[in-house]
Amino acid sequence: MDKIAIIGTGLIGASLGLAIKRAGIKDVHIVGSDINRGHASKAQKMGAVDQVEGSLVSAAKDAEIVIIATPVMAIKDAMEIIAPHLKEGCLVTDTGSSKGTVMEWAEQYLPRNVNFIGGNPIVGKEGGGPDAAVNSLFQDRPYCIIPAKRASQDSVKLMTDMLRSIGSKPFYMDAGEHDSFVSAVSHLPFLLSVALVSCASKSPSWDDIAKVASEPYKNLTSLASGDPATYRDIFLGKDQSIVYWIDTFISELYEIRKIIVSDKDGKREALEKTFSQAFVARTKWLAGLVTSASQAAANRERIPSATEGFMEMFTGDAEARRRLFGWGSRRDRDSKDKR
Amino acid sequence: MDKIAIIGTGLIGASLGLAIKRAGIKDVHIVGSDINRGHASKAQKMGAVDQVEGSLVSAAKDAEIVIIATPVMAIKDAMEIIAPHLKEGCLVTDTGSSKGTVMEWAEQYLPRNVNFIGGNPIVGKEGGGPDAAVNSLFQDRPYCIIPAKRASQDSVKLMTDMLRSIGSKPFYMDAGEHDSFVSAVSHLPFLLSVALVSCASKSPSWDDIAKVASEPYKNLTSLASGDPATYRDIFLGKDQSIVYWIDTFISELYEIRKIIVSDKDGKREALEKTFSQAFVARTKWLAGLVTSASQAAANRERIPSATEGFMEMFTGDAEARRRLFGWGSRRDRDSKDKR
Repeated sequence: MDKIAIIGTGLIGASLGLAIKRAGIKDVHIVGSDINRGHASKAQKMGAVDQVEGSLVSAAKDAEIVIIATPVMAIKDAMEIIAPHLKEGCLVTDTGSSKGTVMEWAEQYLPRNVNFIGGNPIVGKEGGGPDAAVNSLFQDRPYCIIPAKRASQDSVKLMTDMLRSIGSKPFYMDAGEHDSFVSAVSHLPFLLSVALVSCASKSPSWDDIAKVASEPYKNLTSLASGDPATYRDIFLGKDQSIVYWIDTFISELYEIRKIIVSDKDGKREALEKTFSQAFVARTKWLAGLVTSASQAAANRERIPSATEGFMEMFTGDAEARRRLFGWGSRRDRDSKDKR
Repeated sequence: MDKIAIIGTGLIGASLGLAIKRAGIKDVHIVGSDINRGHASKAQKMGAVDQVEGSLVSAAKDAEIVIIATPVMAIKDAMEIIAPHLKEGCLVTDTGSSKGTVMEWAEQYLPRNVNFIGGNPIVGKEGGGPDAAVNSLFQDRPYCIIPAKRASQDSVKLMTDMLRSIGSKPFYMDAGEHDSFVSAVSHLPFLLSVALVSCASKSPSWDDIAKVASEPYKNLTSLASGDPATYRDIFLGKDQSIVYWIDTFISELYEIRKIIVSDKDGKREALEKTFSQAFVARTKWLAGLVTSASQAAANRERIPSATEGFMEMFTGDAEARRRLFGWGSRRDRDSKDKR
C-alpha cells in the first residue's frame, strides 16, 4: 500500500482524490485531512479519500506524495506543521495560485531530504468545497509545475506521471513567469471588475445607471463578487507583477482613448483595427490557436510529452512510481494519454 | 384595423412583434420590413408580423406606430426614406442604444406633424436575428424612453401603454443622461474587454500566458468578441461621455494601484475595504436593491407607474389607443400589469 496525503479536501483536493481514483491506480491509499471536518468527511463519503485524519501530521506521515490543497495563506502553516514528520524522499506539492511565495516557504520550512514541486491546476474555478468536486476537473486542462531547485529529476517525473494520469497537461514554468502570467489573466481581470463596479456605483446617478445596466455589465463585473479576503491576501503577497499589468492595461486603454478623442482622418480605421485585433486574438485563444512563438514555450511542451521513456530511465524511485501508478511500459502510458 | 410597422425584424424587432401579439391586442395589423428578406419572412413565419413589405415606404405608410428596430447607423436612412410618407400624428420610435444622435436625426429628418419618442429596451442581448426572438424578451426589463421636445403628451402615453402591455418597465430619461449611463455600463465594459485582450496578447509571452488563462479571463474578455464594425460606429458617434468614464475608470484603477505599491500600515484594511465595497455594491445591484438617491429618479419611476388614469385623460387619441391596445379601464390595465 502506497500512501497519498491530501491536505485540504475542498474543490481541488477532493477532485484530485477522485481523479487519482479514476485513473485506476492499484494499491494506493489516499488519506485526507481538512480543518473543516465536514469537508473531510464529505470527501470520504464521495470516495475522494479512503481515510480521514484529524491531524495533518498523521495524514502526512509515511506518505509518498503529500498534496497541500489549502488556500494559499494556509500553505505556510501546513508546511511548518508537517515538516518534521515527512518521509525521506517524498514528493510534496501544492495547488496555490501564487508560486513565488510558496516556493520560498518550501525552501524555508521543508527538510532538505524531501522534494517540493509547486503546482497550479488551471481549472477555471475555485472554492465551492468538496460538493463541487468532479473526477474530470483536470481533464485536458493545463497544470503548471514549478520544481524547487533541489527537487530530484525523479520526483519531477513522478509529478508529471501523476498529472498525466489524471488527464491534465503539465507545463513547466519558473515561479516568476507563472506569477506574472496569472497576474495578467486572473488578478488583473479581478481588479478591472472591482474598478468597474466602483466607478459606476460611486456616481451620484448610480440608481439610474443601475437600471440601464444589463448583461455586459454583469459579465464584466462578475469577478468583483469574489471573496474580498482571499483577494486581499493575494495582493498583500510579495509578487508585484500586477503593477506591471495594471500599467500595461492603462496604457492600452489610454491608446483607445486617444483614438476616440482625435478628430483626424483615419479615426474610423484605427478604431476598427484595434477592435478587430482583439476580436481575432480572442477567437484564436478560444480555439486553442495561440502559437508557440518562443523556444522556451516549445521546450515546456516537449518535456512533459515524454518520449524519453521516463520509466526506463530510473530504477529505484521509478519502481515506487510503477507501484503507485501501475505503468509498466511506455505503451501503457501512451495508451492512457489517449483517453 | 390599426397598423403598426416594424422596420428591421431582427432579434428586437421580431421580439417586439411577438410581445405585442402576446399582449392580445385586438384589431392590430403588424407589417414588417427588413433589408434582409430572409429575416422578414422568418418573422412572418413565426407570427411576429402579419405581413411583409419589401419597401420601407409601404410598411410605414398609414401606420399609427412606426418602430425602427434597425442597427443604429441605419436609423438615419430609414427616417429619411419614410419621412414624406408618415401618417399625420403617428408615433415613431426606435430601439437604438445611442440616443443623442438619434434624437438629432429625428429633429432633422422627420416631419413636424409626427411624434418621435426615442426608445432603448434594456434586454441584455443584441443581434442574433429573428431566430433568437421571444415574446418575453421585454418582460420585467427596463425600457428607456426619451420623448422629443415636440412629442405630444398623448403620444408619450401611447408609448408608455404599449411598453407596459409587453411587460417592460418604462423609464424616462433625457438623451444625454441615457447615453452617459449606457457608456458607463455597456461601452466602457467593451473597451475594458478589448484592452484586456490587447495587453496580454501583445506580450511576447502570450503563448504561455494563454495556457494559464481560464474562466476569469474568458469572462472579462467576452465583449471583445462583439462585432468590430458595430462598436466602431458607436465610438465614431458624437457622444463623448465615454471619455469621462474611461478617465473615471483609470482613476479608480490607479487608486487600487497606489494601495498595492504602498508599504504603509493599513494596506491590508484598504485593500479589503475596496474589494468589499465593490462586492456589496454588485450584490445590491443584482438583488435590485440600488436605492433611488435622487428625486429625479423617484420622479422617473412615478411617471410610468400611471395612477393618473391615462385612459380617462384623453378622448381623441386615447380612443385610438383604446382601439390599439383594447384597454377600456384602469382595472384592465392593472390586471395586465400583474402578469
